[in-house]
Amino acid sequence: MNEFISEVVLSTFGPSTVGDIGLAQLDDGASFDNYIITTDGHTVKPLFFRGGNMGTLAACGTINDVSVMGARPLLLTSSLIIQAGFQRDALVRILRAMKASCDEVEAQIVAGDTKVVEDPIGLYATTTGVGRRWKGLDENIKIVRAARDYPSSFITDSGLEPGDVIIASGTMGDHGVSILSERDELSISGDLSSDVAPVWDVVRAALEAGGVTAMKDPTRGGIAGALNEMASKAGCGMVIREHNIPIRPSVRAASEILGINPFEVANEGKVVLAVMAERAERVLRAIRATRHGTDAAAIGRVTDDEKVLLETEIGALRLFDMPESDPVPRVC
Amino acid sequence: MNEFISEVVLSTFGPSTVGDIGLAQLDDGASFDNYIITTDGHTVKPLFFRGGNMGTLAACGTINDVSVMGARPLLLTSSLIIQAGFQRDALVRILRAMKASCDEVEAQIVAGDTKVVEDPIGLYATTTGVGRRWKGLDENIKIVRAARDYPSSFITDSGLEPGDVIIASGTMGDHGVSILSERDELSISGDLSSDVAPVWDVVRAALEAGGVTAMKDPTRGGIAGALNEMASKAGCGMVIREHNIPIRPSVRAASEILGINPFEVANEGKVVLAVMAERAERVLRAIRATRHGTDAAAIGRVTDDEKVLLETEIGALRLFDMPESDPVPRVC
Repeated sequence: MNEFISEVVLSTFGPSTVGDIGLAQLDDGASFDNYIITTDGHTVKPLFFRGGNMGTLAACGTINDVSVMGARPLLLTSSLIIQAGFQRDALVRILRAMKASCDEVEAQIVAGDTKVVEDPIGLYATTTGVGRRWKGLDENIKIVRAARDYPSSFITDSGLEPGDVIIASGTMGDHGVSILSERDELSISGDLSSDVAPVWDVVRAALEAGGVTAMKDPTRGGIAGALNEMASKAGCGMVIREHNIPIRPSVRAASEILGINPFEVANEGKVVLAVMAERAERVLRAIRATRHGTDAAAIGRVTDDEKVLLETEIGALRLFDMPESDPVPRVC
Repeated sequence: MNEFISEVVLSTFGPSTVGDIGLAQLDDGASFDNYIITTDGHTVKPLFFRGGNMGTLAACGTINDVSVMGARPLLLTSSLIIQAGFQRDALVRILRAMKASCDEVEAQIVAGDTKVVEDPIGLYATTTGVGRRWKGLDENIKIVRAARDYPSSFITDSGLEPGDVIIASGTMGDHGVSILSERDELSISGDLSSDVAPVWDVVRAALEAGGVTAMKDPTRGGIAGALNEMASKAGCGMVIREHNIPIRPSVRAASEILGINPFEVANEGKVVLAVMAERAERVLRAIRATRHGTDAAAIGRVTDDEKVLLETEIGALRLFDMPESDPVPRVC
């Protein structure tokens, strides 16, 4: 359904663009002048979950889409659609969480709108974010351009080339598995919790280390979706070492019980990056020194055969498929 | 309820701002660098109505908020929340209407998002718009600054001063009255239809004529709400000549049947402006020459007594009150 709608939207709106990155690129955001803009509707249920709430998610979802384009988060707008009679306390908790996430990256919420409806929706929040060019982005692109063509003015999904190293900024599957286990009232001991967080610190450190060629936040579709999208947009392939992908034991255990693939569900505080091989060690160290990047790992390489492959611990290769459908609806 | 939420939002987010116009000003948009950004959620029912549909409304609502700040509409983002099973044909009609309204002002839809939900909502659309400084805005501000202080970098709600002339760009009440009559299945003959349209041509002509000090699109709360907001933000009053406010006979007739005040319901293709008295004739002529401004009229004057008064045809004065509540919910 989501894909169908995206197709309808894209064919109706056409290749609208102001800068070099527009609707047709289906990247995390669009460029105009020296800015990135991105928008996301949030319909997550439950509204409050371990690790965050609708407010954290609505702010971070947008902050992260701006960040992974290499832009510094500058401002957000917030449009709320609220069911009549919605609890004041719950609303305040959600708004405070939204503000706290923005404060963490020094982004301002400059404009908003509220609509009240009778429909039984609880609360939906649509946030739009704008990010601005900054010195670290320019320096990073200069380093990349010293070695190869890099036509884009920001960091795109498709900037990778064979030989680049793939880095994941932390453990995968936390958000999707946590939300689903909460919905199923699964009583799992351990540290199951959404990873929702702004990843600007990770992105900033990576760009300052220099040599980043592509970035994406692996939300809907998980890391499997993000890697396949990056590879297919670039016309490349990848070999990903399965046992190098960071994952919490509790997430692995819950995934088995729930019968879902933790690499196909949303993360909300992670980045996957492609980095020029000769800069990978340096970028990895820089990411590991950040608050949200301590579990970062190099997980594979970009290849030239157009397939994303998963290498098992004993060296066998199998396709790392694009998820066919979203195993966890209403997760973001 | 809407006001209550706005208060909660404002007190939680605080006076967030990047440029000189931010959340605290509660203007039609916020400024950053050389841009205006604004966001609006749209929940109108029915989705299709005489004169337009959800798509026209979602595009124009945002284009107009950007325009009345004096910025040239540059781009929109569109975030759709759609009920599972929503008809493809209806979706395409809505998206085409959105695109057509953007085409009219040469704005690009550069980024979007779609979420599918089981909630019985039909379709909600949240649009965010960005507008850019342009020559006509700068020229207009230069003209105003030659005569008085004008601290703002764009056209605000509050820029008016006693002596300024108030202009309405066309007939009032069309959108709200039309939607409500459609919901009530009122069979009224005549030209009852929403006025939804992008007002950029009106704004552009007015600014190029020069001397505009304040602008607002009279949506929720109608012209009564817009004028009261402008006056109270500026610490001024107004005397508005009731019989000079343009209104269609069909809208007046339907309002009487429905028992609502046509000056308190939303317009979606109109502007109210304050203009320096010595430039008012010129601005009025310029507006009347535009496609969406043919019915424009000078309707009153700004005063210094902090009350917005309505002068009847025989010269009696009464308070032109701020609407107490929204007489037509889900109208935009």
